[in-house]
Amino acid sequence: MTPAGRQSYMELALEEARRAEMRGEVPIGAVIVDAGGVVVGRGGNRTRELCDPTAHAEIVAMRAACAAVKSERLPECDLYVTLEPCPMCAAAISFARVRRLYFGAADPKGGGVENGARIFNQPTCHHAPEVYGGLAETEAGLLLRAFFSRKRGA
Amino acid sequence: MTPAGRQSYMELALEEARRAEMRGEVPIGAVIVDAGGVVVGRGGNRTRELCDPTAHAEIVAMRAACAAVKSERLPECDLYVTLEPCPMCAAAISFARVRRLYFGAADPKGGGVENGARIFNQPTCHHAPEVYGGLAETEAGLLLRAFFSRKRGA
Repeated sequence: MTPAGRQSYMELALEEARRAEMRGEVPIGAVIVDAGGVVVGRGGNRTRELCDPTAHAEIVAMRAACAAVKSERLPECDLYVTLEPCPMCAAAISFARVRRLYFGAADPKGGGVENGARIFNQPTCHHAPEVYGGLAETEAGLLLRAFFSRKRGA
Repeated sequence: MTPAGRQSYMELALEEARRAEMRGEVPIGAVIVDAGGVVVGRGGNRTRELCDPTAHAEIVAMRAACAAVKSERLPECDLYVTLEPCPMCAAAISFARVRRLYFGAADPKGGGVENGARIFNQPTCHHAPEVYGGLAETEAGLLLRAFFSRKRGA
C-alpha cells in the first residue's frame, strides 16, 4: 500500500468519525480494506444508537466485513481507525486475525495497544497484527478534542 | 443472592453452553440477571454461525440484555458465564458497568480477568465488577475438556 493509499483509507475512517458525531456518538471511525484494496467494511461508533456497549467503530466495521466475506476471520485485511483501539477492540482485532492495524491518535486514557492492557504484547495473545500508529493523528485528535470540549461546554 | 440462586443461574449458563456445542460452537454460555433476579439476557457462543468474531457468549448475552433494557449499560446486573472471560469480553463487561461477574472455570490460556491482560486491574479500566470465580467450575471445565478432546480425536 502506498502512503497516498493509506492516507485515503484514513480519510474514509475520518469521514465515518464525522458521521458518528452527527449521530450524537463519540467521533471515531474505522474502515476495513482487503488485500486487493477494496473496502469490505466501514463504520463509526454506534453504542448509543444501538444500545450496544460493544458497537465501537472497529467492531461495527469488522462485523460488516465478516458478514461481507462470510467468515469470522479477516486474515488478508487491514483495519484503519481514527483512534488507538481500546482493549475490547484490540482483542477482537486479534480474534479476527487482521493483518495490519493503522490508527490515528494514541489514547493514553483508554487505549489497549500502546497503552493500558497492551493486548498484542500479552503472552496469551495468539495473533498480533502489524501496528502503525500516528496516521492522520492531528486531524483525528482535533476531531475528538473539539467533541469533548463542546460536550463540556454544553 | 443465595448460593442456591447463584447455582441455578450458573445452571442456565451451562445449558446455554450445551446448546452452543449442539450448534458446533465452543461450549460456553452466559446469563445476565437484573437486580430483581430476572434473567434479562442469555446466550452461548455464536462466532461460527454468525461469522462474527465478537459473538462470544458474554457479548451475545449482554447485547440481548442491553436491547431488553434499552440501554448500553447494565449497572444493576450480574453476569454468569461458564468460563473466565477473555480480554475482549472483560473490557465489554467493564463498558457495560456490570455489577458482579460470576464465572466457572479459569482460563490460563485465553482469560483476561485472572490471567493475561487482567483487564479489571489496569489503571485505565474505569469500572470493575465484583468478581467471583470457580462457580460450578468442575462441570464447566469438563464440558470444555470433553469438547476439545472430541475435536482432537475427530
